[in-house]
Amino acid sequence: MRQLPQPSTADLDLVRVLSALADPVRLELVRSLAGVREPLSCNVDRFDVEVTAATLSHHWKVLRDSGITTTFASGRNRLVELRRADLEARFPGLLGAVLADSAR
Amino acid sequence: MRQLPQPSTADLDLVRVLSALADPVRLELVRSLAGVREPLSCNVDRFDVEVTAATLSHHWKVLRDSGITTTFASGRNRLVELRRADLEARFPGLLGAVLADSAR
Repeated sequence: MRQLPQPSTADLDLVRVLSALADPVRLELVRSLAGVREPLSCNVDRFDVEVTAATLSHHWKVLRDSGITTTFASGRNRLVELRRADLEARFPGLLGAVLADSAR
Repeated sequence: MRQLPQPSTADLDLVRVLSALADPVRLELVRSLAGVREPLSCNVDRFDVEVTAATLSHHWKVLRDSGITTTFASGRNRLVELRRADLEARFPGLLGAVLADSAR
């Protein structure tokens, strides 16, 4: 498994993170990832979102580029996980506040 | 002084609030408002942002429409204040997490 390129924790940018979170599909993906402790497959049928595979792939890229998720690749498989600790280190309380609302 | 139309606290939407915050100029305006206890004049020379008056006016509208600020109008004067309590009631911890980073 190799890790796809992503910004370092120190390089996480608040505006980019907020922009990435400011989308109902991406919020749902983040909520799904927050509910598990292991990386999840990126397959569209795993998530409760009504988008095409191409659109979902775009959303995963936005989340990775902003530093919200890490993506691992193995051949054609992709696993993704939330950068919980990195986000908490850089923006304490932000992810929790966002997830608290998503859980309503 | 009349209050310009704004969403009720119950109608505040996380995606709209995150979108409104996901802009460097609007983050700076929110940070400025967070530093005071009284409504501030909307005049461009009051804020440390390099935008035209028309652009600033647009940013104020985005902040108001998303429910982050209240705008009061009196003739041609506009005063704006942060909806601190409303935001905290609807999204506990969110504003604090965002402002903590802006203050770095």
